[in-house]
Amino acid sequence: MLAPEDKPKLATKPYLAATARFANSADTPRDFLERCLADLAALDPKIGAFVHLNLEGARAAADRSTRRWREGRELSPIDGMPLGIKDIIETADMPTENGSPLFTGFRSERDGASVAALREAGAVIVGKTVTTEFAATEPRGTRNPHDLRRTPGGSSSGSAAAVASGMLSAALGTQVIGSTIRPASYCGCIGFKASVGALNRGGSYDGLSQSATGVLAATLEDAWQVAYEIAARTGGDPGYPGLFGPASAPALRKPRRLAFLETAGWGAASAGAKAAIADALTRIKSAGIEVATSQSHPKVAAVAAAIEGARALSMRINAWEWRWPLNTYRDRDASKLSQVLLDRLAEAERMTLDQYRDDLAERDKVRARYAELASDCDACISLSAPAAAPLGLGSTGDPNCTVHASLLGIPALSLPVLQDEGLPLGLQVAGFVNGDAQAFAAAAAIKALF
Amino acid sequence: MLAPEDKPKLATKPYLAATARFANSADTPRDFLERCLADLAALDPKIGAFVHLNLEGARAAADRSTRRWREGRELSPIDGMPLGIKDIIETADMPTENGSPLFTGFRSERDGASVAALREAGAVIVGKTVTTEFAATEPRGTRNPHDLRRTPGGSSSGSAAAVASGMLSAALGTQVIGSTIRPASYCGCIGFKASVGALNRGGSYDGLSQSATGVLAATLEDAWQVAYEIAARTGGDPGYPGLFGPASAPALRKPRRLAFLETAGWGAASAGAKAAIADALTRIKSAGIEVATSQSHPKVAAVAAAIEGARALSMRINAWEWRWPLNTYRDRDASKLSQVLLDRLAEAERMTLDQYRDDLAERDKVRARYAELASDCDACISLSAPAAAPLGLGSTGDPNCTVHASLLGIPALSLPVLQDEGLPLGLQVAGFVNGDAQAFAAAAAIKALF
Repeated sequence: MLAPEDKPKLATKPYLAATARFANSADTPRDFLERCLADLAALDPKIGAFVHLNLEGARAAADRSTRRWREGRELSPIDGMPLGIKDIIETADMPTENGSPLFTGFRSERDGASVAALREAGAVIVGKTVTTEFAATEPRGTRNPHDLRRTPGGSSSGSAAAVASGMLSAALGTQVIGSTIRPASYCGCIGFKASVGALNRGGSYDGLSQSATGVLAATLEDAWQVAYEIAARTGGDPGYPGLFGPASAPALRKPRRLAFLETAGWGAASAGAKAAIADALTRIKSAGIEVATSQSHPKVAAVAAAIEGARALSMRINAWEWRWPLNTYRDRDASKLSQVLLDRLAEAERMTLDQYRDDLAERDKVRARYAELASDCDACISLSAPAAAPLGLGSTGDPNCTVHASLLGIPALSLPVLQDEGLPLGLQVAGFVNGDAQAFAAAAAIKALF
Repeated sequence: MLAPEDKPKLATKPYLAATARFANSADTPRDFLERCLADLAALDPKIGAFVHLNLEGARAAADRSTRRWREGRELSPIDGMPLGIKDIIETADMPTENGSPLFTGFRSERDGASVAALREAGAVIVGKTVTTEFAATEPRGTRNPHDLRRTPGGSSSGSAAAVASGMLSAALGTQVIGSTIRPASYCGCIGFKASVGALNRGGSYDGLSQSATGVLAATLEDAWQVAYEIAARTGGDPGYPGLFGPASAPALRKPRRLAFLETAGWGAASAGAKAAIADALTRIKSAGIEVATSQSHPKVAAVAAAIEGARALSMRINAWEWRWPLNTYRDRDASKLSQVLLDRLAEAERMTLDQYRDDLAERDKVRARYAELASDCDACISLSAPAAAPLGLGSTGDPNCTVHASLLGIPALSLPVLQDEGLPLGLQVAGFVNGDAQAFAAAAAIKALF
């Protein structure tokens, strides 16, 4: 363990709750930002959550926001919110490096759709947060704020670490396997992966078919608001209906019945994690919420069986969809791609379009099986990860608890309400496609039990 | 009319037909390329089809192809084919300028998915072809090779002009309203707009939901092969099954029944165009192919009614989907956006996500209505444009004959078999979603009648 003096002091920075004091200038967005930046200055040298900062731009944006709040003409409830952007999403004022030396210093000269929408809503973009290489496997050195010897998870490593350590109120992530829920679990903040297509991915280098934008945040309310403001201004992916739900966080709504899914991560679950989820299930049942399991409900058993191969199926689909751009990156300079990605490209080049079609058809079947659960259960709960963040920075940890939600394209939330080894562990609440608001309402009810 | 000495001499350059002589070196890809480049040098100063050329790279690629053909190890049937790339699709060796001063000299440092696939198939990328501003409305000066006073159509202006004038065998285009079929009609070459999602748009700046990659080519065989080689190596858009069909151009198959659609362009159709299509219908019927019309078949009438509002609906959908990136472009430098696009952005900013959802639902209804036609008709035919290319370079012409195919997401082909005012006019053959191969087979049968 770290000596106590080495352990950072962490205080997350919920934003919406703070804005009540802005109108009379008891507090201001600029002051709020400075508190974030003070923690950033103190903590980031140890944690390494950022790859680029635009402090001058952030302070100017916070000052503009301060004036707007004072004059009662704020652009949205998140006007002034200090935000980080995962470094696979384009920003006009900072490079977009994709966690890859192939993109060192690369400037797209524009904001991604989500970033443009957030700026329109008045948000203060503080910096670009560390991602693994192309949001895939290879870590880039960010440390877990709760224990610097441990991984923060990935691929949204910097976003989760910065939010959990109070350097930002919220940050954008993405997820195609487990890249939002897992780091939220390891770092101890809210993680929200939206329904597939619900938040516009324009200008984000995550073009895979089951990739979705996510939000890491201090509170459920902040997470919802960030997502809502994006969708209101730029919708979902072109052709998708975009995030459904109210203009502020959905009210707590006690579920009637939840399905408990062990997921493929259960085999690796630690004793502490199993004890924590057992306690959680007890609390949930004590609150009068029924819990359906594979043993008690055939539909839950059917879903559990259908998602068993979720990781292998997801990896095959992702591999084919990554044939490009990995091929053009390799042709540019293979020495700047990790061996993991070169291997994935080689796998893709052994695949055929027909095999990919079969995989898509298989995914459709799994999705249909899961959709049948909606008539019986309000949401699913599971561990967000099999254990607390593992020691070491060489791996971002086990994604087996999260990959089913990616495959299914469903909204998923990680609530920082469990512990393992005295470290954060997330409770995952997953809903049904385009039922993001319902998943939030259920998550709020569950969170209130802890 | 131009004086005869001012009128360029045009000879398209079919490629597949030429490759038979490559094995024994009676001809070579390098020689083929030089014939294209000779026409390019002679004609492009007048036509202005290219915005960037990489002649050194093209010659080196053609030399490599020449060696492969000589040694019997060509990478695909299009190994060595001289190709142009619409300048909204990324190329590692040339800038991608999007027809916009905002992107002057911009380098993405990678190939788009289609370009990467074509290079893997051995194709010779000669240059980037002129597009209207962001593949929208504002022309960029390319002239019609058949009459330099006339527009080549848009937005794939340079691709169509270069292919029709024999500077290239084929070129990539895109279409979200009429940007492939219309210039093919005006310039007199094959135009093929694939089913929505059938060809991977990765690295192309046309992210709208009804945008699709297209091919301008000298022959149907060349057009199919280019599309096939893209799909075989990089599939369709992520999550889509990709182009269906055989490894070489679908064999001619005489349709049983075709539906004739007047489309919204009929009101503006010239006397010459009406006479040309009437003659075409006579030929088709004489060949024993039944022609169903709005008058004779209720399902055709239902489709005709359903697509009446195709342009307005498409424009609304496109406007919302273009809110981003037009907003970030405007924020960067509004003076570098045309008034047309600034107006479109302003329209988008007056829209809400709910309105967009209604528009998507309406589009789904129109698509469902059209799909019902598949049980009665093998394909639809119509004019590709209401008339020959209009005089002047200030507009790329009337898209009302093409927009329904874009809205419907269906495969569409323009066959250069009609004339108006002694200038090219296309006959449009449109199929059903993912029935690209069937549309080609029907188009081959129709083309054989002329």
